[in-house]
Amino acid sequence: MNEPADLLIYARWVIPVEPARAVLHHHAVAVRFGRIAAVMPSDLARRTVDAARVVELPEHALIPGLVNLHTHAAMNLLRGIADDLPLMRWLQEAIWPAENKHVSHSFVREGTLLAAVEMLRGGITTCSDMYFHPDAAAEAFDLAGMRARVGIVLIDVPTSYAADADDYLRKGFAARDHWKNHPRIGFTVAPHAPYTVSDANLRRAQTLAHELDLPLHIHIHESEGEIRNSLAAHGMRPLARLAKLGVVADNMVGVHAVHLDAQEIELLAGHGASVAHCPTSNMKLASGIAPVAQLLAAGVRVGLGTDGAASNNRLDLFQEMRHAALLAKVGSKDATAVPAHAALHMATLAGAEALGLGAEVGSIVPGKRADLCAVDLGDALMRPCFDPISHLVHVAGREHVSHVWIDGEIRVAEGVALLQISDKELLRIATVWQTKLAN
Amino acid sequence: MNEPADLLIYARWVIPVEPARAVLHHHAVAVRFGRIAAVMPSDLARRTVDAARVVELPEHALIPGLVNLHTHAAMNLLRGIADDLPLMRWLQEAIWPAENKHVSHSFVREGTLLAAVEMLRGGITTCSDMYFHPDAAAEAFDLAGMRARVGIVLIDVPTSYAADADDYLRKGFAARDHWKNHPRIGFTVAPHAPYTVSDANLRRAQTLAHELDLPLHIHIHESEGEIRNSLAAHGMRPLARLAKLGVVADNMVGVHAVHLDAQEIELLAGHGASVAHCPTSNMKLASGIAPVAQLLAAGVRVGLGTDGAASNNRLDLFQEMRHAALLAKVGSKDATAVPAHAALHMATLAGAEALGLGAEVGSIVPGKRADLCAVDLGDALMRPCFDPISHLVHVAGREHVSHVWIDGEIRVAEGVALLQISDKELLRIATVWQTKLAN
Repeated sequence: MNEPADLLIYARWVIPVEPARAVLHHHAVAVRFGRIAAVMPSDLARRTVDAARVVELPEHALIPGLVNLHTHAAMNLLRGIADDLPLMRWLQEAIWPAENKHVSHSFVREGTLLAAVEMLRGGITTCSDMYFHPDAAAEAFDLAGMRARVGIVLIDVPTSYAADADDYLRKGFAARDHWKNHPRIGFTVAPHAPYTVSDANLRRAQTLAHELDLPLHIHIHESEGEIRNSLAAHGMRPLARLAKLGVVADNMVGVHAVHLDAQEIELLAGHGASVAHCPTSNMKLASGIAPVAQLLAAGVRVGLGTDGAASNNRLDLFQEMRHAALLAKVGSKDATAVPAHAALHMATLAGAEALGLGAEVGSIVPGKRADLCAVDLGDALMRPCFDPISHLVHVAGREHVSHVWIDGEIRVAEGVALLQISDKELLRIATVWQTKLAN
Repeated sequence: MNEPADLLIYARWVIPVEPARAVLHHHAVAVRFGRIAAVMPSDLARRTVDAARVVELPEHALIPGLVNLHTHAAMNLLRGIADDLPLMRWLQEAIWPAENKHVSHSFVREGTLLAAVEMLRGGITTCSDMYFHPDAAAEAFDLAGMRARVGIVLIDVPTSYAADADDYLRKGFAARDHWKNHPRIGFTVAPHAPYTVSDANLRRAQTLAHELDLPLHIHIHESEGEIRNSLAAHGMRPLARLAKLGVVADNMVGVHAVHLDAQEIELLAGHGASVAHCPTSNMKLASGIAPVAQLLAAGVRVGLGTDGAASNNRLDLFQEMRHAALLAKVGSKDATAVPAHAALHMATLAGAEALGLGAEVGSIVPGKRADLCAVDLGDALMRPCFDPISHLVHVAGREHVSHVWIDGEIRVAEGVALLQISDKELLRIATVWQTKLAN
């Protein structure tokens, strides 16, 4: 008697990420009740699986859905509003004034919708978000049908969103309560950065994260100025301060981590902390080159983030995979650094593990949720193809993403998003906010 | 009485590159006899121009066709055949053995066809190519309808193509004679590199280039090893040697130019020499970060090249524009380095000028040839759009190229190549060679 499946996907290549480097030729993935039921040779699947739906991907690589380990989704509304400025001027002269004037529940909800659709169309099935109004972001991710970990943001600066630390946390935890037990939406505790959050509030954030078993999502060591200022104000570098406060731990996702000495790499490795590497943002803001090869060698888990659309300017993990590989090579003067399979691992399983989702998503393994992405490698522009993993990192782009599934539900088919939000609605949102912001 | 035009293109934005930074809203470009006849506001064009064909691009930026200042087009057949290796191992263990075994007239003709179609679909209308069998490359560029400057290659290594310097030059100049007076195909003299060509042959190459008024296309200072070896063998750095031999001149296009001291930058500037910057290749092979900001500050003309598909792995000048901007910023620790308009200038007018084509192509100016590229910025994924030049560099990809014209003739329409070569034929070519190469 044949095995039943809700969905059966035949692919030219299945690249499961686990085990590392594996490329399964002419394989099929069976999905049952939203989870991966089996991975097997296509000819075996044709004989032994009875599927309600069948998708044939004769020239495609099927990979795990990508995990965007760091973004500010709502900032899609600020895409390209100010380029060619260094980090602090960019923040102080362009981004913060625009945010002060415009950020609201609807700004965040609508900006996050734009971002979620951009991510889904590019094969990203999970993201870790940090912005104001996490309740509004959660609404948008829910509507888009995306998996997200939304940051309960905390910053020692009063904004239109919240007055003080108590207010940030109260509002963030209220959002978490509202979305409790949602199958796709979860939360992180997200103190913005060591330079914007006090010792007491950093400690409190990690205490809460530990109590509730949540990741802690924080910017660290993005610029040299941040480190100089910390030495002046606290007599120590930011990571030393975080370590002293008990923040460095296996639930910490340190974003950027561009400027690290050998001791700091060991500190992160010793505590099982993760890094969200954002190569495009680091280049665009001239922050520096993160020591990714050294982090990986030390055993630190390194995932990939797009950062927000204001400093990238696209939420595209195919671009980040390529940039992670290229920047590590030129940064370490070693062309063997971050080979293609390592970049793919960073964009999938490492990101999932950093969010505590390693048992659920990030690789194509029976029992995991069926978050999947198909990439069409059939175009003449991508031929020949000697190694599909190399092509995923160095040749293909998000424009080649043909299908995306989350929990086995189709979100993108033949490159077209099948969502509850129409393109017309997205264009309307973008136009309304562009007009407001341009004034 | 109205002005006649063969083609009239209405665009949301016309970005002419000259004058720098100009963005013309709702403008039209009229084409007559293959050349740009006029650039004017759309409403004026609607009243005053009678056109045989009209194209409406309501959400598009119309830019000059891109100029790929350095490629090895036929190497598309070796795309991704060996990654994650440093330059000399990559050449000696992977590329040269494959080339020795397989390169032939048909390899070059067919590989160049693949490359030409890839370039055209990505908005590249002119390229400067360097490879064996330039006669075969010229055939392919002619068939594809692309503008090309094909290198009369010269290397002090016998190959299946040519036995010695005399043979390389004899064959190259025979190809030039064959294609004389072709409206789109021209030639450069292309000694491979200082480390592969003798003093006598370098001198001879430049003498011939000067006599025939051709550009001289040569790799320089790509890796630190190359400079060390030159110091050991010649007692001077490669550029000093080229200067001594009279090779450094205003017709020289130095490819890569990664490792330059201040004196060498002045040398290039003083002689009016050009640089073909290949940021992706430099990152992938861990060659280093070219001092592009310093070159531009010194007044050196810097164009952009994709290099070959074996070290990139795509012939995509949108990618190279983005990488030129990003790498210059992180390399110089200055987020203001290579702003978006500078990257666009490098990919268009600077490349055209480096090839001696500055009066013919590279900007949207009446009298120049109508080599044009339209980029659709209408997708919700690219909204909002505050600055279309920023979007061309940091958001759009070659996948958004909707139309390409060369000499006013359409080559790509709605993203589909309208060429004498079918996609089926391209796939056949790629499959045949992949099978041979994989053995």
